[in-house]
Amino acid sequence: MNAAPLHPLAVNYEDVAAAARRLEGHARRTPVMTSRTADERCGAQVFFKCENFQRMGAFKFRGAYNALAQLSPEQKRRGVLAYSSGNHAQAVALAGRLLGVKSVIVMPQDAPQVKLEATRGYGAEVITYDPRTARREELAAGIAAERGMSVIPPYDHAQVVAGQGTAAKELIEETGPLDYLLVPCGGGGLLSGSAVAASHWSPGCKVIGVEPEAGDDATRSFRSKTLQTCHNPDTIADGARTPSLGRITFPLVLQYVHDMSTVSDAELLRTMFWMWERMKIVIEPTGALAATALLEGKLDRRHDCKGKRVGVILSGGNADIRALCRLF
Amino acid sequence: MNAAPLHPLAVNYEDVAAAARRLEGHARRTPVMTSRTADERCGAQVFFKCENFQRMGAFKFRGAYNALAQLSPEQKRRGVLAYSSGNHAQAVALAGRLLGVKSVIVMPQDAPQVKLEATRGYGAEVITYDPRTARREELAAGIAAERGMSVIPPYDHAQVVAGQGTAAKELIEETGPLDYLLVPCGGGGLLSGSAVAASHWSPGCKVIGVEPEAGDDATRSFRSKTLQTCHNPDTIADGARTPSLGRITFPLVLQYVHDMSTVSDAELLRTMFWMWERMKIVIEPTGALAATALLEGKLDRRHDCKGKRVGVILSGGNADIRALCRLF
Repeated sequence: MNAAPLHPLAVNYEDVAAAARRLEGHARRTPVMTSRTADERCGAQVFFKCENFQRMGAFKFRGAYNALAQLSPEQKRRGVLAYSSGNHAQAVALAGRLLGVKSVIVMPQDAPQVKLEATRGYGAEVITYDPRTARREELAAGIAAERGMSVIPPYDHAQVVAGQGTAAKELIEETGPLDYLLVPCGGGGLLSGSAVAASHWSPGCKVIGVEPEAGDDATRSFRSKTLQTCHNPDTIADGARTPSLGRITFPLVLQYVHDMSTVSDAELLRTMFWMWERMKIVIEPTGALAATALLEGKLDRRHDCKGKRVGVILSGGNADIRALCRLF
Repeated sequence: MNAAPLHPLAVNYEDVAAAARRLEGHARRTPVMTSRTADERCGAQVFFKCENFQRMGAFKFRGAYNALAQLSPEQKRRGVLAYSSGNHAQAVALAGRLLGVKSVIVMPQDAPQVKLEATRGYGAEVITYDPRTARREELAAGIAAERGMSVIPPYDHAQVVAGQGTAAKELIEETGPLDYLLVPCGGGGLLSGSAVAASHWSPGCKVIGVEPEAGDDATRSFRSKTLQTCHNPDTIADGARTPSLGRITFPLVLQYVHDMSTVSDAELLRTMFWMWERMKIVIEPTGALAATALLEGKLDRRHDCKGKRVGVILSGGNADIRALCRLF
């Protein structure tokens, strides 16, 4: 896959600024939380950007809304399609409802009932498929072509990336310049958007992407400077099970991101539990990636965060609490 | 018990205003959260005051700090004593550490290890006793007399009540006038302080206290206008297992509170789970009392909150997550 050529740098800070204007009054300006306990544990001044409190529970709303808001009237009339069993599905469904755009979400028929219902609850038409016999990309492309719908990809899309970058922009507006910004990484939409934003609004800030150990394709891509893949990695961070960075996000990561790090599932669980117990907030496994790298000292070998001002994006809070209760 | 006479109204809004000035820069000005989902579910505009994000995880810090800050230099030198196995213990310990006041906390020897350690972690000396053979009040009074320490009661103390009232003051400052204010009720410290504050800063606002069904002493006291007791009620809302309102809090409740309501443990659990899942925040059972009355429609028979502006105090977040995971 990804035989297609890489895209030149497709997003700049002006795109992020324009996205921020589009999102005003629609996306929630999520709070930045601080914790004396976290500061003491890390020896740093830590600012948590709480995208777990974003509408539909994750940063994904930003990118989806920014993309849908820029459709032409004709495209809006025909509607949008997304394939996702995660937060992107609900983000597109909710953005569609708010903008009066019909949405179709293609999901595997064995997706959790609660996710199917949540997506329908936001007003989307859900089309399920048998993942043993159908490939969702082909199925989705077929439906989109047949109905003339616009496909909204989860991360490899300039307007989606620009939308995701608004979280970092807001964070820096609230905290002032940062020394480090730590960002979860799946397909790189949030990471590359954040890095573009930081490079402009907090020049000198080092941006570090964090992904699961089992799905370390972005780290390997970053180090080798060639796109690596990792199919269906076994990790609880379901939002980072993406096979690789994208044609749009990879060049942005190479240009604007300073380093990558990985964390294990056991470390993610410890962080989630710690955040629940100490900070009283719920984050999902993928949402805990960046915080885990800091709290578990995974950056210490290459980066000295001691005494520094460190931004951490908590990217989402849609944890399956019953499942997590079994793991704790 | 409580054969002692009731105290005339011991706290007014000026006491709350003075407490707010003392707490500035020491207590956290906790965020007020809103949720479209909560608004839709209740048909009201709901403002959640998040004292689960307060220092040491509950509103109790406000009252303890306000009381300790007013000790004389000599009293500060001799130190303070509290008996509590809950949030008040940690509140006194933390306030003591911040103000340079030595604290002794008397706790049952079978208190959870994690609570003993947390209290010691805040710098308190913990003295344990065997609850089968010793009464903590007598034990505490003996130690306090011997060492010349000031006893800081958990709720029946004017400076503690005034401190607790600052949470409602902050809430109203942020939201503007409210139609209703719903407040958890154990011994009535938070409830009476909140009601005093609301009566001044949001006149016309109806203040409703909420307690567990199994420990409905305050509701019975409110209706009968005579102090009722309920010993060791069987409820997961451990902060509301207090035997009765106090000599100071009861008259304030009669004067400033408009109604009382009760909720069941099953309803509390549903609310906690809903808050975790939908609002991504962790609250403890006692902290969920007021929210539960609203979300479960327990007020509907006597109060029409539809279309109204409703403040809800989420009083604490120190939930024992492992224990709750077993209950969910």
